[in-house]
Amino acid sequence: MNRSAAVQDVFMLFGDSITQGGWEPDMNSFGQRLSHVYARRLDVLNRGYSGYNTEWGRFVLQQCIDPAEVPGAPQIRVLAIWFGANDACIKPSPQHVPLPRFIENIKRMISLGRVPANSNRKETRIILISPPPVNTIVRKADLESRSPPMKLDREFDITRAYADAVRDVAKGEGVAFVDVWSRIWEAAGQNESALQKFLVDGLHLNAEGYNIMYDELIGVIAREYPEIHYDNIPYTFPAWKDINWTNPESSFKAEIV
Amino acid sequence: MNRSAAVQDVFMLFGDSITQGGWEPDMNSFGQRLSHVYARRLDVLNRGYSGYNTEWGRFVLQQCIDPAEVPGAPQIRVLAIWFGANDACIKPSPQHVPLPRFIENIKRMISLGRVPANSNRKETRIILISPPPVNTIVRKADLESRSPPMKLDREFDITRAYADAVRDVAKGEGVAFVDVWSRIWEAAGQNESALQKFLVDGLHLNAEGYNIMYDELIGVIAREYPEIHYDNIPYTFPAWKDINWTNPESSFKAEIV
Repeated sequence: MNRSAAVQDVFMLFGDSITQGGWEPDMNSFGQRLSHVYARRLDVLNRGYSGYNTEWGRFVLQQCIDPAEVPGAPQIRVLAIWFGANDACIKPSPQHVPLPRFIENIKRMISLGRVPANSNRKETRIILISPPPVNTIVRKADLESRSPPMKLDREFDITRAYADAVRDVAKGEGVAFVDVWSRIWEAAGQNESALQKFLVDGLHLNAEGYNIMYDELIGVIAREYPEIHYDNIPYTFPAWKDINWTNPESSFKAEIV
Repeated sequence: MNRSAAVQDVFMLFGDSITQGGWEPDMNSFGQRLSHVYARRLDVLNRGYSGYNTEWGRFVLQQCIDPAEVPGAPQIRVLAIWFGANDACIKPSPQHVPLPRFIENIKRMISLGRVPANSNRKETRIILISPPPVNTIVRKADLESRSPPMKLDREFDITRAYADAVRDVAKGEGVAFVDVWSRIWEAAGQNESALQKFLVDGLHLNAEGYNIMYDELIGVIAREYPEIHYDNIPYTFPAWKDINWTNPESSFKAEIV
């Protein structure tokens, strides 16, 4: 096989099933919408892994990011990190990660995303995203209806604590923060049972939930990292009306970023 | 910026606006659906360029494919080539490409996708896709309503000739062929005005048109290249239930493809 040349940089979405589902049909989910608005600008890569927590995710991210100067691979212009929904599982769930360890793992992921301190390369823009609030009423009913029935594996206040931790790490590390937890909680009028307007199963976002998340993400990018807003990233290759039609080759020299 | 490591291979979609629009909201378009089913398997890259014909596209593809052994860049497992809708414009449109030259350009793109004859690398799987039929009734009305009014720039039988040429090149070169032209024409009962069920403006596919295209594409992959069907490509990193929970690091060794 030939290789895919790095004609444009990468917008990497790293997280659990809520990230993996970013291109789900009939959802207008955030990955799909990013792919659309960043077309001809950045390649939006799905690095979402259903069921994963940060304890497992850190091994994945280590392999997804190449800290060496390998010229053939595309550069990561943006790295979004979205965990917490599974880490916040309560014991004895195997997905449970203690809060201090969760914080350590998120910091470790940020440091994997950053260029080495002695490098003169441009920084990758890092965005932390908090998990959505849990509707334990729906989640409990869902788990109890399974065969065999399962016990509730998440608690409302515990997921909130993990969301708060993401916000605090973002502040401490000086990276952008997309507060999905608060935006969804506000949209539901701070009423747990009303969360179902934004969740499919008490845990995962539905189309309306992803819509809120996407708007918040784009708003944060516009405010904190305007240079990576899609409107500010030029096309990798020219618009067809800008091509020199009589001598097209001249329009395609040195277009690679 | 750090680089994106090649943890999985690439499914490259190369074409014009009908490819670029593959992640359009409210469409369940083919790029989005491929992104979804190939999640954790292949990265689906949008290399669609609105308005482009093969004459301009060949310069782009030359830059998107790295024929050298650059280890950092991901390998192209699948290359889909979808042109003809703009090449088939009639004179004096600047998008017009004469049919013999269109055929030459498509063959050139295939040869760019192939590994060098003296290489022992695996082949990139190449798929040619024919352009959809044109509804000249709607297209004419659309162009005449513009300010200033424009003349009809495509003819039904000419686009059909370009679609036939794609089929013939696929056969001659021994690569897979997705016959969008015929599938949409059949679905419309071979009735030009009925094409509007599958097109938004006489030229671009709508949700129903993309649905037919996607089903045909997946069917062709299943028949001709079953090894690249998403069901036959394992996850790049393990499903969370397969992770060794007490010693997770052991689950992430040598997972890179």
